[in-house]
Amino acid sequence: MAIRIGILGYGNLGKGVECAVKHNPDMELAAVFTRRDPASLALLTEGVKVYAAKDAPAKKEEIDVMILCGGSATDLPKQTPDMAKYFNVVDSFDTHARIPEHFAAVDEAAKKSGHIGIISVGWDPGMFSLNRLYANAILPGGKDYTFWGKGVSQGHSDAIRRIEGVKDARQYTIPIDTALEAVRSGSNPELTVRQKHTRECFVVTEKGADQDKIRETIINMPNYFSDYDTTVHFISEEELQRDHAGIPHGGFVIRSGKTGWEDEHNHVIEYSLKLDSNPEFTSSVLVAYARAAYRLNQEGQSGCKSVFDIAPACLSPLDGAALRKHLL
Amino acid sequence: MAIRIGILGYGNLGKGVECAVKHNPDMELAAVFTRRDPASLALLTEGVKVYAAKDAPAKKEEIDVMILCGGSATDLPKQTPDMAKYFNVVDSFDTHARIPEHFAAVDEAAKKSGHIGIISVGWDPGMFSLNRLYANAILPGGKDYTFWGKGVSQGHSDAIRRIEGVKDARQYTIPIDTALEAVRSGSNPELTVRQKHTRECFVVTEKGADQDKIRETIINMPNYFSDYDTTVHFISEEELQRDHAGIPHGGFVIRSGKTGWEDEHNHVIEYSLKLDSNPEFTSSVLVAYARAAYRLNQEGQSGCKSVFDIAPACLSPLDGAALRKHLL
Repeated sequence: MAIRIGILGYGNLGKGVECAVKHNPDMELAAVFTRRDPASLALLTEGVKVYAAKDAPAKKEEIDVMILCGGSATDLPKQTPDMAKYFNVVDSFDTHARIPEHFAAVDEAAKKSGHIGIISVGWDPGMFSLNRLYANAILPGGKDYTFWGKGVSQGHSDAIRRIEGVKDARQYTIPIDTALEAVRSGSNPELTVRQKHTRECFVVTEKGADQDKIRETIINMPNYFSDYDTTVHFISEEELQRDHAGIPHGGFVIRSGKTGWEDEHNHVIEYSLKLDSNPEFTSSVLVAYARAAYRLNQEGQSGCKSVFDIAPACLSPLDGAALRKHLL
Repeated sequence: MAIRIGILGYGNLGKGVECAVKHNPDMELAAVFTRRDPASLALLTEGVKVYAAKDAPAKKEEIDVMILCGGSATDLPKQTPDMAKYFNVVDSFDTHARIPEHFAAVDEAAKKSGHIGIISVGWDPGMFSLNRLYANAILPGGKDYTFWGKGVSQGHSDAIRRIEGVKDARQYTIPIDTALEAVRSGSNPELTVRQKHTRECFVVTEKGADQDKIRETIINMPNYFSDYDTTVHFISEEELQRDHAGIPHGGFVIRSGKTGWEDEHNHVIEYSLKLDSNPEFTSSVLVAYARAAYRLNQEGQSGCKSVFDIAPACLSPLDGAALRKHLL
């Protein structure tokens, strides 16, 4: 019997989960829940119903794992512990500083109800975190580097959109090749924020807006842009739609470290992602961890987990013998 | 109290384990066991005793995890199940075709004695296998590629050394850049053996040996060389010692796959290693998994495991809260 997946929140991430479920024959989409008017949603999957988010608890017998596709700022801190009362849950909570309290809240709810909650699933946090952990365990004498991009940063794009006179904007985070090469050489360089990434902005302005002023506002914006070399291009709305409609992303996790009695040998471990669609890739990771949530709960486990706590075999539809034969 | 590590077999791998233990403050080297004359071994670590391999069982109360550093052809198939009667064990068994029977033998012995055995630990099998599993679970619609090198292949070097007139040899396996680039482009190319790697050989011959004949013998050797474009360089013994004394290796595991309702988005996941010392890196992985073996056994678990069965958190000296705070 297929694992029955529920989706709460049908934006880019929710749609990505729907597509990922289609790619996994051992799963099926059971229902989608939304805070919008359910009648306003047109799903891609035929025959699947849309319900109001508030009616989710009533469907608890029909769903094995609920994948939470809301935002980390305000949705997930409330939704994940809430839903863990009724379902096994998986989320992509990515506010690093608040992970400890989120973990505690989900753990309490999930233990009380006898469910599994897996939080902070995706690629960063997620696959990047895993690669940091593995590389740190293998090379305790070393240094970690994370580079992001080339890709669209939603947060930085939003920050530009909030400037007066800006109609729309897209911001790309771009890792600097010379910094990447220095890290790969094993020289363990100390790199400033400015030396690691540049920021490139494509901005559509309102008619009559002061573009020079907008450019100055962007490149001097504290936290978002002032520590980086930032380039601003003003383009038309048509160009933005034509050339910048995608949501690509990616990045690199590199650890360089020493071994040997006198630290005489150097090693470089590198993990990288090149993603055409950031939300679809994140969704694909969420769905793999939904399989793990279901299995762990079937084994009688409960409580909150992160990707660190899940044995890799739990993610695969193959059994242990098949995995050892084909992938080991 | 530190985890007490034993080493069985003190070649390149055993020495690498000794160095890796030094890099991990929560571990200590308790003893080394050898089939050679114990008095003939000079360890790097002060105050650690060397015993005859046959006396290992008598030391079972003094060692938490025995790391087996023998070869996969004849040593480990016997040693790992044998030692699992007395110890938690970790090995780097790498004969892919025989993993199922090795797993079964270790599982039986380890379950009977109440110990943990972790087999096929290292980088391939090992970290490469893990990355294949993760990438397959995330992108079920995709294709796997593994490239090895640039690095020294001991098996191929040995094959050359067995040719009449050859005094010594070093063989490098080299991935072909254009093949790597084609894979990274997401085009999912079909690649022949010859299109993925070249082989470069540095050969020292006996005085008066027929070098043309040796070159022909190498490049036409079935399985080892005939399917590859192979280059043979004849050099002096001094040059071999000076320029080819190291044991570097590395490689790339790449999965390219599609997401989206109509498979419209492509993604590339790449994991790569660049290693100055193949045995020291393998040893570093063995030691991280020794920590996991100890912990799982402390929890009361027993039986055979592979890297697929071990939650990543088990490898780290940090606890769950610290891992979530610093690495998630």
